[in-house]
Amino acid sequence: MTGPLVLYAGRGDAWPRYRDLLGEALAAHGVAARVTDRATHAQDVDYIVYAPNGPITDFRPFTRAKAVLSLWAGVEKVVDNPTLTQPLCRLVDPGLTQAMAEWVCAHVLRHHLDTDRFVTGQDGVWRDDFVPPLAGERRVGILGMGVLGQAAARALAGLGFRISGWSRTAKTRPGFDIAHGTDGLRRILEHSEILVLLLPATPETHHLLNARTLAQTRRGAVIVNPGRGTLIDDAALLAALDGGHVAHATLDVFAREPLPVDHPFWAHPRVTVTPHIAAATRPETAAQAIAENIARAQTGQPLLNRVDRDRGY
Amino acid sequence: MTGPLVLYAGRGDAWPRYRDLLGEALAAHGVAARVTDRATHAQDVDYIVYAPNGPITDFRPFTRAKAVLSLWAGVEKVVDNPTLTQPLCRLVDPGLTQAMAEWVCAHVLRHHLDTDRFVTGQDGVWRDDFVPPLAGERRVGILGMGVLGQAAARALAGLGFRISGWSRTAKTRPGFDIAHGTDGLRRILEHSEILVLLLPATPETHHLLNARTLAQTRRGAVIVNPGRGTLIDDAALLAALDGGHVAHATLDVFAREPLPVDHPFWAHPRVTVTPHIAAATRPETAAQAIAENIARAQTGQPLLNRVDRDRGY
Repeated sequence: MTGPLVLYAGRGDAWPRYRDLLGEALAAHGVAARVTDRATHAQDVDYIVYAPNGPITDFRPFTRAKAVLSLWAGVEKVVDNPTLTQPLCRLVDPGLTQAMAEWVCAHVLRHHLDTDRFVTGQDGVWRDDFVPPLAGERRVGILGMGVLGQAAARALAGLGFRISGWSRTAKTRPGFDIAHGTDGLRRILEHSEILVLLLPATPETHHLLNARTLAQTRRGAVIVNPGRGTLIDDAALLAALDGGHVAHATLDVFAREPLPVDHPFWAHPRVTVTPHIAAATRPETAAQAIAENIARAQTGQPLLNRVDRDRGY
Repeated sequence: MTGPLVLYAGRGDAWPRYRDLLGEALAAHGVAARVTDRATHAQDVDYIVYAPNGPITDFRPFTRAKAVLSLWAGVEKVVDNPTLTQPLCRLVDPGLTQAMAEWVCAHVLRHHLDTDRFVTGQDGVWRDDFVPPLAGERRVGILGMGVLGQAAARALAGLGFRISGWSRTAKTRPGFDIAHGTDGLRRILEHSEILVLLLPATPETHHLLNARTLAQTRRGAVIVNPGRGTLIDDAALLAALDGGHVAHATLDVFAREPLPVDHPFWAHPRVTVTPHIAAATRPETAAQAIAENIARAQTGQPLLNRVDRDRGY
């Protein structure tokens, strides 16, 4: 019996964990695979479990590989690799999705109830004249209504917020009224008090928030970005923050990561930087999702979450 | 036609707002009432809309009053007033209930994801090795499963948290598994990583968290108290914080309010004080709830949320 050969090509320090978890998950899916972190012959590899911070940059030697299965939800660092001709799949990891919904709810509630004023202002003065609106009076716009945007929207709606979703292209999803296109974007920017960015990084979404679109946002809006750094033109955001048009930005992702120590975001009083921790891949649930996709391919079913190379995600 | 006379006896500065809202709400409930903030003859008053920070301390002159309707959810400041012989009703205000659920979710998520470390630690160092557990791996205990505790439990469960509820006396509520009594309390204290206090202030709940019960809590637990200040023995909590057994306390209510400027809670690095703002009465929804109760009394139906004077709430 020779099952498929699965090459782990993610971060070296995570290999022991993934070795065990992928092995168990594949067995549970009925796939008698061999999982390795080093292939003697690239042409023997059937599946590549891939991360941009792993060892592979050239996919050409993997002539038999049936799929490259990303360990990251975002694939912008690999989708344009000219050596990649194999099918590429994004990771849709229920653990990552849940983590993202939690992080978004935490920071939307943080801004909604302005908890920072209490966390940082323990000065002994009793200021009890603070009655924020209820969530039902607070308009939250979510740019990007893929798996992560929908999960965030559902969680925020469950808390009572008034949610508007926007997708670049027309899209319908049960339970959501999703705007799209330039006009839809302008309307959401105009009425949202809190804007959550959950779009993928593509040429079309590059600097979606720029001087022109930031000027369309409601005065005093808060921007929460756990999506991708390139969605925002940093200089335009800094100008909008300095001018007071945007009240605050909580940013988890940046055009360049780690965010350089001298980047003005770090010291800006209206910016909260979090170091790309909103939603880490959870090895337990990621291994399940990857094993499921390998099992599908082995039984002739179409791959899940396959990337459209033209669309970029 | 002479409808009932409703005396507003809350804070003077809120009277113009309540005059309009109570008038409209009573009319909407079909009650042709007169609403006033000063009664020429106390014996003419049919209903008293009451707050402890309003003008009434002696209820004896109100010989005809059919009910005292509290504008506060907590009635510990009036329930033992010996001049009060009229039926007393707590306020159950959907606006206050929703605000409480939001505040609890905001602070439970804040502690769950340790957002303070980012809000207060913008030092330019990229620390991305931060993978908190998912909500489903986080045990939250809610002490007090009345209207507010149940609302908080529902909202937290919706976010994925593992919820345990505790009531002083045996209680069943659909959808919740509620422990009770001393043994039930010990179990919840032992396993909860985040404890939320939503009990009323009564002789039985006075210093429910004391040196003995704090010692039963899980090491590193976080305490969130939007209930009543007297639930906690301050000195015992400070000792547990100083000793590191309790990791943090976020407190909205205090035995003495405003919390005195020299109280050690203000300066303690492991305490976050909020100035009794978790859940303010919302005049719009409170007026509706009070009008509904008056309408019930006028048509011979039993009052809602009537206080059991022996129980204290």
